[in-house]
Amino acid sequence: MNYGFGIDLGGTAIKLGLFQEDGKLLQRWEVPTQTEKEGKAILPQVAQMVAQGAEKWKIAKKDIWGIGIGVPGPVDDEGFVNGCVNLNWKPFSLKQVLEEMTGLPVKVANDANAAAYGEYCAGGGKGSQAMLMVTLGTGIGGGFVAGGKVLNGAHGVAGELGHITVNRQETEPCTCGKWGCAEQYASGRGMVRLAQRRLESTDRESMLRQLPSFAAEDIFACAKAGDGVAREVLEEVFQILGMVIADSCCLLDPDTVVLGGGVSKAGGPLLRGVKANFDRYMFAPGKDIRFALATLGNDAGICGAFYLLRAERGEAACWKS
Amino acid sequence: MNYGFGIDLGGTAIKLGLFQEDGKLLQRWEVPTQTEKEGKAILPQVAQMVAQGAEKWKIAKKDIWGIGIGVPGPVDDEGFVNGCVNLNWKPFSLKQVLEEMTGLPVKVANDANAAAYGEYCAGGGKGSQAMLMVTLGTGIGGGFVAGGKVLNGAHGVAGELGHITVNRQETEPCTCGKWGCAEQYASGRGMVRLAQRRLESTDRESMLRQLPSFAAEDIFACAKAGDGVAREVLEEVFQILGMVIADSCCLLDPDTVVLGGGVSKAGGPLLRGVKANFDRYMFAPGKDIRFALATLGNDAGICGAFYLLRAERGEAACWKS
Repeated sequence: MNYGFGIDLGGTAIKLGLFQEDGKLLQRWEVPTQTEKEGKAILPQVAQMVAQGAEKWKIAKKDIWGIGIGVPGPVDDEGFVNGCVNLNWKPFSLKQVLEEMTGLPVKVANDANAAAYGEYCAGGGKGSQAMLMVTLGTGIGGGFVAGGKVLNGAHGVAGELGHITVNRQETEPCTCGKWGCAEQYASGRGMVRLAQRRLESTDRESMLRQLPSFAAEDIFACAKAGDGVAREVLEEVFQILGMVIADSCCLLDPDTVVLGGGVSKAGGPLLRGVKANFDRYMFAPGKDIRFALATLGNDAGICGAFYLLRAERGEAACWKS
Repeated sequence: MNYGFGIDLGGTAIKLGLFQEDGKLLQRWEVPTQTEKEGKAILPQVAQMVAQGAEKWKIAKKDIWGIGIGVPGPVDDEGFVNGCVNLNWKPFSLKQVLEEMTGLPVKVANDANAAAYGEYCAGGGKGSQAMLMVTLGTGIGGGFVAGGKVLNGAHGVAGELGHITVNRQETEPCTCGKWGCAEQYASGRGMVRLAQRRLESTDRESMLRQLPSFAAEDIFACAKAGDGVAREVLEEVFQILGMVIADSCCLLDPDTVVLGGGVSKAGGPLLRGVKANFDRYMFAPGKDIRFALATLGNDAGICGAFYLLRAERGEAACWKS
C-alpha cells in the first residue's frame, strides 16, 4: 500500500490529510499558520507535520508518494508560487524548497483549484467530464477542471469568476482594486454589504435590524422566516450569481457546476435561486448543465491536493468507487 | 509529400484550400453554398471540390491526409454536428457521412474554433501558449486554444463571449433569444444599432445622418474624421469589448488575445480602444496579456481546419516556420 499527503495551506490554518492510495483519508490534522517573519516558519511547520504523520502511522518513506499542497495564490505548472499575500510570501519555487526540506516529491496547486479538483474527483462533481466549481466564501473563488485536468491559465487565475464586472457604475473598490466585481455583491461579505446598503436606504422593518451584526447565513435565515428585505437581497444575489455563472459557462462550457464554500451551506434555496437565474441568463445551446452542491466541505482542499499528486504520478486521475 | 484539404463551410460560400503538409496553401476555391432541400446538396458539393482539387494537382489518394472542415454550428469531439441553422442541417454525424462519401479521413470542428486554431498556429496568435480569439463580425464569436488544443466544451459553445450579459435592463432580444448580450452592442450589427439609438435620441449633428445607411466601418471612418456621435458610440463599444474580454480572461486566463473578423479591419484604433478598457476592467494578476490583430483574414477558417486535421494525425500541432 502507498500513501500520500494532501495539504491545504491557508492564512489561518494548515490542514493536512494522510491518504491511502485508494483515496481513503486515514487522518487529518490542523495547526494555526505561523505567518510571522515573511512566513518563513510555515514550511518547517509543514515538514514537521508530514514527519509526524509518517511516524505515527509507521509509514516507510519509500511507501509515500509525496505531498500535494494547495496555497492561496497563483501557482504555475512548475510549482512556482507568485507570492501569497495571506501567508506573507514573496514569489519562490515552493516545489523546490519543500522537496529539499522533506525529501519527498511535491505537487503544488492554487488552493481553489485543489478544492475544485477534490470535488471533481470525489465530491459534487463526481462523474462529470468538465466542471466549474464556484466557491462562495468571504470572497468568490472558482476553478475549472476538464478531462481530468485543472485549467491553471497563463497567470494562474483561470476560473476567477468573482472578478467578472457586473456593475460599471460601482464607486466602491473591490479588494482586487477594480470596481463592480461580482464578489462585491454575491460573496458572503458582498451579501452583507448589499443588505446594509438596502437597510440604510429605507425605513422598512426588517429582522436584520434587530441583530447587532449579521452574516450571510443570517440573511438566509431571515429570508426563510419571511423577511422582505432579506428576500430582496437574496433575489439580487441569486440574479448576480446566476448571471456570472452563465457568463462563465458561455466561455468554459462545462457539464456540471458545483457550488461550495461556507455560503453554500444555505443548500437548496441557494441552489434553486442560482439555477433559476442561470436559466434566464444562459445562452440556450449550453444550458443543459447539472447544478450540485459541494459535498466534501472543509476536506475538499486536502482531498484535491492528494488527487493532484496522484494524477501527477500518472495514476488514474480520479478515483472510481 | 503529403497534402490535406481545409474547408470553411458557411451559409453563403464553401471555401476550400489545398495545403502541403508543411502548411503551404497551394490553391483556394470558393463556390456558393447550395442550402436548399435541407442542405442535402452541400456535402456532394464538398466531395466534388475535393475530387477536382486532387485531380487538378495530380495528387494520389494515398498522399492525401484527409479533410479538415469547419461548420457554423456546435460540433462534438466525434464529429457529430448538432444542427446548423445557416445550412438548414439537422443533427447528424458529418464525419461519418463525409468519410463515406470521399473515402478520406475527416476532422470536423466549429468554424469559429477552426478560425481560432488557424490564427493560433499561423496567424496573430503564433507563439502563444493559450490564446483567446475574438471574432467581430455581424455577431461576436470566440474560440480558446491552449496547449495546442481547442476547448470545445460539453455543448460545443466554449469561448462564446458574445453572449456574456452586459445589460440586465435590455428590452430588445438578442438573436440568441436572451437579453443584453455583448453582441447586441459591440458586434458589427450591434455598433450600428447603438449608433442609430443615439442618433434617434438627440438632434445633434453627425456625419452619420448624411449616409443613407451605414455599417461599422462608416462609424470608424466618421469617428476618425472627428464626428462626436461616432466617437461616443465607439467609446461605448470599446468599453463593452474591453470588459467582456476582461471577464473572459478571468475565466480562461490566456497569454494572448487576437481580434479578428470583418470589424477588426479597423485595426489600430480598435486594438488601442479595446486594450485601454481591458486594462481598466481586468483583475490585476491576469493583466499581462498581449493583444494582436488577426493576420489570416478570410483564410483563417481553411488554415485552421487543415491544422486541426494535421494535429489529429499526431503531427506537430502547429507548424513552426
